[in-house]
Amino acid sequence: MANQTITAVKGFRAAALPVGIKTNGKPDLAVLASDVPAVAAAVYTQNKVVGAPVIVGRKHIRKHLVRACVTNSGCANVCTGQRGIDDAFEMCKLTAEGLVAEGEAFPIAQVLPFSTGVIGHFLPMDRIRAGVPRVIAALSDAQEAGEAYAQGILTTDLVAKTAFATLTLGGKKVTIAGCCKGSGMIAPNMATMLAYVATDVKIHSQVLEGIVDAVARQTFNCVTVDQHTSTSDSFVVLANGLAGNRDLALRDAMKFGTALYEVCDSLAQQIARDGEGATKLVRVLVSGAKTADDALLAAKAIANSPLVKTAIHGGDPNWGRFVSGAGYSGAAMDVDHARCAVGSPLIKARSKSLITVFKAGRPADVKLSAVAAIMGQKDVDIFVDLGFKSDHSARVYTCDLSREYIRINADYHT
Amino acid sequence: MANQTITAVKGFRAAALPVGIKTNGKPDLAVLASDVPAVAAAVYTQNKVVGAPVIVGRKHIRKHLVRACVTNSGCANVCTGQRGIDDAFEMCKLTAEGLVAEGEAFPIAQVLPFSTGVIGHFLPMDRIRAGVPRVIAALSDAQEAGEAYAQGILTTDLVAKTAFATLTLGGKKVTIAGCCKGSGMIAPNMATMLAYVATDVKIHSQVLEGIVDAVARQTFNCVTVDQHTSTSDSFVVLANGLAGNRDLALRDAMKFGTALYEVCDSLAQQIARDGEGATKLVRVLVSGAKTADDALLAAKAIANSPLVKTAIHGGDPNWGRFVSGAGYSGAAMDVDHARCAVGSPLIKARSKSLITVFKAGRPADVKLSAVAAIMGQKDVDIFVDLGFKSDHSARVYTCDLSREYIRINADYHT
Repeated sequence: MANQTITAVKGFRAAALPVGIKTNGKPDLAVLASDVPAVAAAVYTQNKVVGAPVIVGRKHIRKHLVRACVTNSGCANVCTGQRGIDDAFEMCKLTAEGLVAEGEAFPIAQVLPFSTGVIGHFLPMDRIRAGVPRVIAALSDAQEAGEAYAQGILTTDLVAKTAFATLTLGGKKVTIAGCCKGSGMIAPNMATMLAYVATDVKIHSQVLEGIVDAVARQTFNCVTVDQHTSTSDSFVVLANGLAGNRDLALRDAMKFGTALYEVCDSLAQQIARDGEGATKLVRVLVSGAKTADDALLAAKAIANSPLVKTAIHGGDPNWGRFVSGAGYSGAAMDVDHARCAVGSPLIKARSKSLITVFKAGRPADVKLSAVAAIMGQKDVDIFVDLGFKSDHSARVYTCDLSREYIRINADYHT
Repeated sequence: MANQTITAVKGFRAAALPVGIKTNGKPDLAVLASDVPAVAAAVYTQNKVVGAPVIVGRKHIRKHLVRACVTNSGCANVCTGQRGIDDAFEMCKLTAEGLVAEGEAFPIAQVLPFSTGVIGHFLPMDRIRAGVPRVIAALSDAQEAGEAYAQGILTTDLVAKTAFATLTLGGKKVTIAGCCKGSGMIAPNMATMLAYVATDVKIHSQVLEGIVDAVARQTFNCVTVDQHTSTSDSFVVLANGLAGNRDLALRDAMKFGTALYEVCDSLAQQIARDGEGATKLVRVLVSGAKTADDALLAAKAIANSPLVKTAIHGGDPNWGRFVSGAGYSGAAMDVDHARCAVGSPLIKARSKSLITVFKAGRPADVKLSAVAAIMGQKDVDIFVDLGFKSDHSARVYTCDLSREYIRINADYHT
């Protein structure tokens, strides 16, 4: 198969190696580099406690130009004060210096730092100092390098998460490729959501920023495994312009935005499906809300309820938990006109794929066994209409809650 | 030991019997009756999906006078439309008629109905019609009757929860006794928080209402097992005035309020300790918040985080989860002046009972083994100061998250 990793995008090279930050010998230092400065936009965590790399990254991206991303796993560099900030900056400096050796000099601020792992520890800078030049020496645009990068950013994730799209814009072929990691905030004390998307589209930085912000709202910001927003969440898009397309007209920008949305939507679903201890992918769809905020509020409350997540884990047709989850979310609800249905994209017969369980304030007349058949599927959809005549809706991805989640998060000792 | 159950209060009788609503043969219908009309105040669920008994109860309590509470377990009578409301009203009617047989007639609205159990099913009214007269015939002020009542309202709770206090007001001895149930919203599809407090104090209904509202905010509204607010939560205080005290001056009303707070605080802690699958009682204390709302927001975010709850379950000194929990709560936080400490009321040596783990934006210099020794206790306190110079603080009770929670809520089928 043709290369569909992040190195399939014109002008991007990647590498990842184990340098001894993690104790298990897996790759823990990764670099993604663009041959030319890329226009960049990023979305960072909304946690008020933020990692040092987020502080440094937010500052560096203000100039909108990025040459490289440097990422370590095994230590989040969070709650580490000024020393942590100095360490994150040094990661950028080491990367810029390493890349200069093979080309012209560029500002340190064109490197973005990322870290993921346990909170409250300082980075082992000796290993990072020794490691960065080795990783840079390994940079390549081969498929293997793209695969190594997608693997290298993982912590407790069970599978690598990648997505790929091509489209034609202004007569030129444009490629978009992304990868991400994330399975819980901290899992066994080492996780977070990090997502990288590379594209060769030529695009104005302000247009890119607007599109990235909108896409993040609809994709990564609509995933929840355990409702614990990480201190290190980062989503960055690098657009190096090497596709050579002419300046994007609004319609083409929207076409690019749609393709970017699809790449990110796929990555977001992959995160939920690989959530800590997850055995199922769950889509929560809320409609008929008074406001868009209400729709998201209700969808997140349902998706975060441990009672909902355990019912789905057990394949239990206990829809009262879905309706009452919307009820306590704070969203306005017209119970007498509300509706609840369950479905599964894995059930092919259309007549059986969506079943209304609650309508007009009382239980619908359905067989619980038919509902249980849906709840037992590997992919489960939950629909709740809040009862208002409106177009406001929201969709949130999550997973079920299993004993394995408890094992991962309780039995590991810091 | 002297009677410290709800029947220890002058003029209150109680009873509970199995009438066949539950399939396991345990008591599932309970009545609490006052010999004279009691001034009453209640706090009901804030879920927008509410049970039919909540709808009827809210209407009945508007008159502030209550003679009896009738409670069934095994079926919540929620999401049942008009038929559910009719059924809840009939429960009151049956109780009023049964009590009339032994005294003078009183309005049906002087009876409050309560139901707890699975959502989305209609009450088996034949069994309730046959059962209510039998329960009323069993009413007694004996200690055994009070114990039966505290047992009869339970569903999956492992232990009965009662609290008791006496005080002297205006020269008269006043008794306060309460009991409650609650261990999860639905556990195996049957739970909710119900709390009943009886007292013989003579008190004006508006004063009682104000006190009950304030007490509920500080006690029952500060407990969380799984953040899923039930559709049926109810807390009611009945004050029948038989203590014969003179009208309460403000100072005496506050004295009564403090005693009521202590009774309810004890009941609230008992709910957290008996949370579904719980092995530990956890107190989350947040201080230094910009506003009182912020303090509660941060405390609830920490208490509801599955990562916090699993860390405590595993005795893991992973304090980064506590600090980052406050960080994503939405509460304002001054990270550079924030502080985090852990402690346990079970460790007697004062020097070892409270350890600061995070201060001034970076880790405190402590041994993880000492932190782990605290986290391994059966009672664990988590302190987070948000870093502002303020008196705003909040305290939330919760429990740990264990495999047993998953078993209870996933393996049971509706």
